[in-house]
Amino acid sequence: MIQKFFNLEIKTEGQKLYNFTEETEKWVKDNKFSNGIINLSIQHTSASLIVQENADPDVQTDLINYFNKLVPMDKKLYIHTTEGKDDMPAHIKSALTNNQISLSVKDSKILLGTWQGIYLFEHRLISTTRIVIHHFFGEN
Amino acid sequence: MIQKFFNLEIKTEGQKLYNFTEETEKWVKDNKFSNGIINLSIQHTSASLIVQENADPDVQTDLINYFNKLVPMDKKLYIHTTEGKDDMPAHIKSALTNNQISLSVKDSKILLGTWQGIYLFEHRLISTTRIVIHHFFGEN
Amino acid sequence: MIQKFFNLEIKTEGQKLYNFTEETEKWVKDNKFSNGIINLSIQHTSASLIVQENADPDVQTDLINYFNKLVPMDKKLYIHTTEGKDDMPAHIKSALTNNQISLSVKDSKILLGTWQGIYLFEHRLISTTRIVIHHFFGEN
Repeated sequence: MIQKFFNLEIKTEGQKLYNFTEETEKWVKDNKFSNGIINLSIQHTSASLIVQENADPDVQTDLINYFNKLVPMDKKLYIHTTEGKDDMPAHIKSALTNNQISLSVKDSKILLGTWQGIYLFEHRLISTTRIVIHHFFGEN
Repeated sequence: MIQKFFNLEIKTEGQKLYNFTEETEKWVKDNKFSNGIINLSIQHTSASLIVQENADPDVQTDLINYFNKLVPMDKKLYIHTTEGKDDMPAHIKSALTNNQISLSVKDSKILLGTWQGIYLFEHRLISTTRIVIHHFFGEN
Repeated sequence: MIQKFFNLEIKTEGQKLYNFTEETEKWVKDNKFSNGIINLSIQHTSASLIVQENADPDVQTDLINYFNKLVPMDKKLYIHTTEGKDDMPAHIKSALTNNQISLSVKDSKILLGTWQGIYLFEHRLISTTRIVIHHFFGEN
């Protein structure tokens, strides 16, 4: 039984879904993990981790638009406004989605459906760097 | 320390919460798992996994109605419409809920509250088959 | 490899975010856990577990206000009303957030960002006691 940790840095440039499935798969391959769990967690509360469709990019556009309508960037609606009109909505979107996902690995493959990708969902308008902690727990 | 995998197939017939607690409990019992984690993940992004109340079935009806109002099935609202009016709303509902849940098992029992059940939350109107991956990691 | 369980009781007095990061950290320290996963799960479906900002308390007020507006406590909107006007909205808020979180522990530290805390998000108006199951799986 082994445990391994890895911090993936993702540079973001505003609201977008950043697909990092390949980076996570590469890490599994490089370390020859066979069976186990990868616990992904994000060290921020204004961006999320989600598993979503990787086929039609329109799905990602629709997701961003929907969340912007559901959680308006309107300073009049919030008390916490000092970090910008997008910050409090970003915290709410984070609460509505996830900051943590556990992935199963079997026979060196992450068990994702054919149309599933792993994404960082950036909710801020600014450019920044996000850290997604990868923690493998299992066998190699 | 052992790891076991099992794919549960659930046939769905439109929007509903499908309780599969018994199937998961049976798997734990049949395999004599004692302590560990069951990582559940769904291979689709238009249906969800949730732990919800199992007492009053009205709760499930209210959940379905609420989510349909929150995420309207109106093609004018979305770009991704080729798979039907219910498809993009299903992806959004998936993002608003979960595609993955980790359950704790102690002394051969899944640690759920008295009123908790494990559900597949189907967001599509169509009839289809969903796969819920069960991955146990622990001791038997 | 060890597994340990601990039930944290949190007394709640209405809608609020209850920070229990210190209690979880104390449990890690007292048991000298080094590396592993803590699976947190809540035995109720009318309160949630979330990781959120721990710096500005206004963020918590905004979260509570936002969720109350998103899921109105209006009996006319729901069928399940026998447990009070706040009960069905609490189930919906539970579905929109999380009842389970897996935390990674490395070198005896829970891997949280500087501004992250672990919260019980109480959705009911009543005073009650909530149980948050802690399940550690790893090495000490």
